[in-house]
Amino acid sequence: MTAPAAPAPVTTLSAVLLAYSDRAETELARFLPADTQAPIELHRAMRYAVLGGGKRLRPLLVYATGRAFGAALSELDAAAAAVEIIHAYSLVHDDLPAMDDDDLRRGRPTCHIAFGEAMAILAGDALQALAFERLAADPALRVDAAVRVEMLRVLGAACGSHGMAGGQALDLAAVGKRLDAAELERMHAHKTGALIRASIRLGALAAGCRDEGELAALERYGRDIGLAFQIRDDILDIEGDSGVIGKTAGKDAANDKPTYPAIHGVAESRRLLAELTGDAIAAVGPLGARATELVEIARFIADRRS
Amino acid sequence: MTAPAAPAPVTTLSAVLLAYSDRAETELARFLPADTQAPIELHRAMRYAVLGGGKRLRPLLVYATGRAFGAALSELDAAAAAVEIIHAYSLVHDDLPAMDDDDLRRGRPTCHIAFGEAMAILAGDALQALAFERLAADPALRVDAAVRVEMLRVLGAACGSHGMAGGQALDLAAVGKRLDAAELERMHAHKTGALIRASIRLGALAAGCRDEGELAALERYGRDIGLAFQIRDDILDIEGDSGVIGKTAGKDAANDKPTYPAIHGVAESRRLLAELTGDAIAAVGPLGARATELVEIARFIADRRS
Repeated sequence: MTAPAAPAPVTTLSAVLLAYSDRAETELARFLPADTQAPIELHRAMRYAVLGGGKRLRPLLVYATGRAFGAALSELDAAAAAVEIIHAYSLVHDDLPAMDDDDLRRGRPTCHIAFGEAMAILAGDALQALAFERLAADPALRVDAAVRVEMLRVLGAACGSHGMAGGQALDLAAVGKRLDAAELERMHAHKTGALIRASIRLGALAAGCRDEGELAALERYGRDIGLAFQIRDDILDIEGDSGVIGKTAGKDAANDKPTYPAIHGVAESRRLLAELTGDAIAAVGPLGARATELVEIARFIADRRS
Repeated sequence: MTAPAAPAPVTTLSAVLLAYSDRAETELARFLPADTQAPIELHRAMRYAVLGGGKRLRPLLVYATGRAFGAALSELDAAAAAVEIIHAYSLVHDDLPAMDDDDLRRGRPTCHIAFGEAMAILAGDALQALAFERLAADPALRVDAAVRVEMLRVLGAACGSHGMAGGQALDLAAVGKRLDAAELERMHAHKTGALIRASIRLGALAAGCRDEGELAALERYGRDIGLAFQIRDDILDIEGDSGVIGKTAGKDAANDKPTYPAIHGVAESRRLLAELTGDAIAAVGPLGARATELVEIARFIADRRS
């Protein structure tokens, strides 16, 4: 018996997912206030922070999950834009001098380098508010008001002290310390995992999915790809090229940040990444062909070069 | 014919409003995550930023408006807490070194002095998310889901680039410049006015008020007291005592910030304050005795010593 050939690495997105990514870009440009509107400088900083880059992973998850449960793309735009706007605001604040003090993001000067620290703080704050406002107001999201309230609650919980902001606080507290594997996982489950899981949940809610078993499968999928995403990020920080990954490589080690390779070694990190990816794909197995795009996203997360 | 005697200045709150203020404090303590929960330092910073001080003007407006339209206090707690949590987050970010660089707030070290800049940024971010989450989740708010969605939309719009954050951006852009009276009014209508108007609107929505005429009267009332609040703030900055107002007096002039007294002079600022207060009280006149507390709040805003 010979082992099956390993599938080819998924380092680029398929046409379907690229189309979702393009759609997210268009919708974000539409949801964001025009930079001809006052206050112009704030709106410029907000658009700069959100538009023109990024993999749009979180919108891809909204679209792929929502499509799996039969939603039209137009019904998913508000949730897709909301999660990406939240993600963009978190990067702006994360890059600030008092936080990670990063000058480069997606190959461009970070928001505070381009617009000054005060404007970057405000742009982040205004983006967070915009995400909730748009999700509350978008007429193309055609769910019962009670479901929309639940979506707003899910988004709020994912952003707050028990979600993304809590993960950032754990990250801050971890600099210069030795975390064990469980503490590292906990930090990432909050810092990046919470919004990734919320993106999938919002896609399912927008599509009217109410099956507890399917929601639980999606939750497992989200948990696994969230951790896989972070392990891949940590490996890229060691092995990647700054020009390709669009941010400064080697930064984690320089900042004495705890990472999967630092705790487990690179080989074991790669094994964990493969295992989580396999588990994620298995979790959505019962969805059959409907999960094709979710499977592709899981493989892309594991294999991506940037 | 003799002029009527001027009413005595309202420099302290009546027992009813003090009870609202106490209730807000209790509800805020309940809504905020316990600082025994992880991440402990973040939760400590969040509680420090919100609890133990402040006039709780915005919760007072929620309670007074909601009571005027027949809501029970328990139905108003979530909105009252949400607007105060938003206000508290905005003060934390406003006090940061890159913004107003203030060390003293409500007579205590500002959040970034007590917890460090990074934690203060995160505490503000997590507080904003918490406000939306609690408003979405609170079971004691007994309105139709569609009304709750509208409340979340109102809160989002009040916080964003066309509301409070936009006002902060206008404020930033104004430092060292000569604003004319209209520009100054516009800045404050956003920076402090948007959340004050939203507090009143949320109280009315939570109470089921749908009368367009009454909502328009409340909107005028909110616009007038919002500006009055700022004029009184500017006068206190000149004439107040740091120990009483709980922040550094004379800071506006030292920072070359545009103020009503700088543009109009103190005497004209006082006249404007009285005029706006009279207009606000007249606007809610048609509500009769139901507006008693709103009238008291308008007078308190004009006469307060801190």
